[in-house]
Amino acid sequence: MSGPLRLDASDPRFADAFTTLVEARRESDDDVSRDVTAILKRVRAEGDAALAALTLDFDKHDLDTTGWRVPREECQAALEGLSPELRSAIELAATRIRTFHLKQKPVDSDSTDDAGVRLGSRWSAVDAAGVYVPGGRAAYPSSVLMNAIPAKVAGVERLVMVTPTPRGETNPLVLAAAEIAGVDEVWRVGGAQAIAALAYGTDRIKPVDVVTGPGNAWVAEAKRQLYGVVGIDMVAGPSEIVVVADADNDPEWIAADLLSQAEHDPTSQSILFTDDTAFADKVADAVLRQINVLATGETAGTSWADNGAIILVADLMDALPLVDRLAPEHLELAVADPEPFFAKVRHAGSIFLGRYTPEAVGDYVAGPNHVLPTGRRARFSSGLSVLDFMKRTSFLQCTPAALRQIGPAAVALAGAEGLPAHALSVAIRLDH
Amino acid sequence: MSGPLRLDASDPRFADAFTTLVEARRESDDDVSRDVTAILKRVRAEGDAALAALTLDFDKHDLDTTGWRVPREECQAALEGLSPELRSAIELAATRIRTFHLKQKPVDSDSTDDAGVRLGSRWSAVDAAGVYVPGGRAAYPSSVLMNAIPAKVAGVERLVMVTPTPRGETNPLVLAAAEIAGVDEVWRVGGAQAIAALAYGTDRIKPVDVVTGPGNAWVAEAKRQLYGVVGIDMVAGPSEIVVVADADNDPEWIAADLLSQAEHDPTSQSILFTDDTAFADKVADAVLRQINVLATGETAGTSWADNGAIILVADLMDALPLVDRLAPEHLELAVADPEPFFAKVRHAGSIFLGRYTPEAVGDYVAGPNHVLPTGRRARFSSGLSVLDFMKRTSFLQCTPAALRQIGPAAVALAGAEGLPAHALSVAIRLDH
Repeated sequence: MSGPLRLDASDPRFADAFTTLVEARRESDDDVSRDVTAILKRVRAEGDAALAALTLDFDKHDLDTTGWRVPREECQAALEGLSPELRSAIELAATRIRTFHLKQKPVDSDSTDDAGVRLGSRWSAVDAAGVYVPGGRAAYPSSVLMNAIPAKVAGVERLVMVTPTPRGETNPLVLAAAEIAGVDEVWRVGGAQAIAALAYGTDRIKPVDVVTGPGNAWVAEAKRQLYGVVGIDMVAGPSEIVVVADADNDPEWIAADLLSQAEHDPTSQSILFTDDTAFADKVADAVLRQINVLATGETAGTSWADNGAIILVADLMDALPLVDRLAPEHLELAVADPEPFFAKVRHAGSIFLGRYTPEAVGDYVAGPNHVLPTGRRARFSSGLSVLDFMKRTSFLQCTPAALRQIGPAAVALAGAEGLPAHALSVAIRLDH
Repeated sequence: MSGPLRLDASDPRFADAFTTLVEARRESDDDVSRDVTAILKRVRAEGDAALAALTLDFDKHDLDTTGWRVPREECQAALEGLSPELRSAIELAATRIRTFHLKQKPVDSDSTDDAGVRLGSRWSAVDAAGVYVPGGRAAYPSSVLMNAIPAKVAGVERLVMVTPTPRGETNPLVLAAAEIAGVDEVWRVGGAQAIAALAYGTDRIKPVDVVTGPGNAWVAEAKRQLYGVVGIDMVAGPSEIVVVADADNDPEWIAADLLSQAEHDPTSQSILFTDDTAFADKVADAVLRQINVLATGETAGTSWADNGAIILVADLMDALPLVDRLAPEHLELAVADPEPFFAKVRHAGSIFLGRYTPEAVGDYVAGPNHVLPTGRRARFSSGLSVLDFMKRTSFLQCTPAALRQIGPAAVALAGAEGLPAHALSVAIRLDH
């Protein structure tokens, strides 16, 4: 097992090496784009027939036999079948996620200003939303909760889940989470074809307005291509963590934190910043030891060797501009007093403060959303929230007097822009 | 001049005809997509050299001669050169837009819950934003204000404007608006190549994090393709207005309102809902009369004939579900009491209430943003706001006691999901 990249910020070649790390793209290739375009066209043209054929191809089952929808009873039975420990864990998670997201509900405004103009804005939920839930390795009940609960908190009336069921097999944990989260429909379709069905609609599956949820490269590309036909959450890339840690941490703890991202996928990335060479070595050793005993060791080991990095800085605060350039999905500040760093860092999806806040606690039960911007997109985008399932309508009302006060400026500007009908529509009302 | 589509909701064929109207796509074709892909690749590979060559091709001037940037002094001179009437109109607009958008600034949260978990979220501005301003017919100073002011209100430190200057000619109104809005850099580049420069950066133009602003089909497609490399505002299609009007309106007023969208572009769409056939006829006549005298009559006439519609309903409230299906960019409720309709309508970008609120007053001086979702996207997206230039970072802090309280549920869920390093990173801290 080769080790990860080791960089020292005092090295004269550091700037170039760090830029290479920042700009390394771990996203999927162009072939996917062509495949997805073809699948979207096919579903749009052939509807349910395309879904049935593609499901037979990819998931090896016949939807007319296994059933297109998972009946509500099966979700309820899955919930009843959970062990008491797991059921209370999911319920705690659901409650905490709901509580956190309730605070995100936006406030409407409606007021009249000094000119007599009434103006404001009003938020409302989209009519219908779709949540994609992967099958196979990444079939996570936590992901169901994190996508479905904000939609329901927003007030979405029709919440549709799509999920592939390879060879017809459902995942009871996912179904139980759907039941707890209040999902209204569960369809046994996955891949780019499921995203197409949600966006365009088919005879069976009515279209939705917003599609969220993680997926493989085909699913992500389908969402990207359908952006504008439907709303989507940010296009997701491989998961990432940056840990800023001093030498007073237990190296085993930090190693586990780095591996909690690395175990997701070989393309995941874990980066440690520290100010102590000996501590860096201890963490590197601990990572290798843990990889050897983890059931997910092979994936984690590949991720760590290919994409991991340990970066030595003279002072932990020196990591600040470097972290901002990485704009990581997850940032752990494993120091006694994280406040000075926290106050200054600008770009990160979510920040985990102090030695007792491993990133994984945020993945499940803390409350904030675990759907977060990856691939440096925390520079400009945010984690999933209630707002992703709502839209804002602005409004305006002039009295005759208010229009007389602000209308002439509109007439002047419309004239200057060469838009006479704009000018006329205001001017014609000014004499009344 | 042929008239617009006339529909009567009581006609048995109405449902099909209305569905055709709703689903008619007035968006650009697939050739544009290939052209844009090639331009983006070229700018990414060749940087400024590609910008210079494409500008010579499309805009017919040599950037090394005319200058890449418009100097600040030229913007200041443009502002000084405005007529007093126009200057005070732009300043009134800027002030009102700033006031409205200041209210959109989001509030951070930071609290500790009963379990002892500190959690919250913090909003911050993106570092840099780019605003596209079209040249030629659609070079609108109001558009500069509507895009640039929200960015500055958000706190964006570096605000870059790109705008084509055909044959080197700048538009003084646009430059004056840039000066008033606080734009930091103005570059003489346009088209898909300008969007590529903003997203990827070149030697001269540093990259930005968010790109907004209207443009032709190439610009819109470039934004769509670069979504994810940068943040963008919603992909914009042709402008639209729906007017709901009773017979007590002056037909000339309503005609002017319909034409204020139609004059933008032949692909624009204006739709009238009314409950009175005679009134519908009067509006149709007034529209044709106004088209004959408007300087923009040719464009407006084509738009009205090709995309316009007058829809008769038995009761104006019957228009409600039809308007929601159209989810128009602009909705005017030209009735004495708009409240019952306003209370129930779900999908519209912006709503103009009552007889004295022509849509054009919102285009310029009212305060709310005129960058609004088109093409039925008001079902899931919102007008441009301060939030488009900001992002939210969530954060979390556990004490040892708080982690003992919620951590075991995270361990249980991580175990159930088959992610042992996630479980370990929490479990390893529970004994301390």
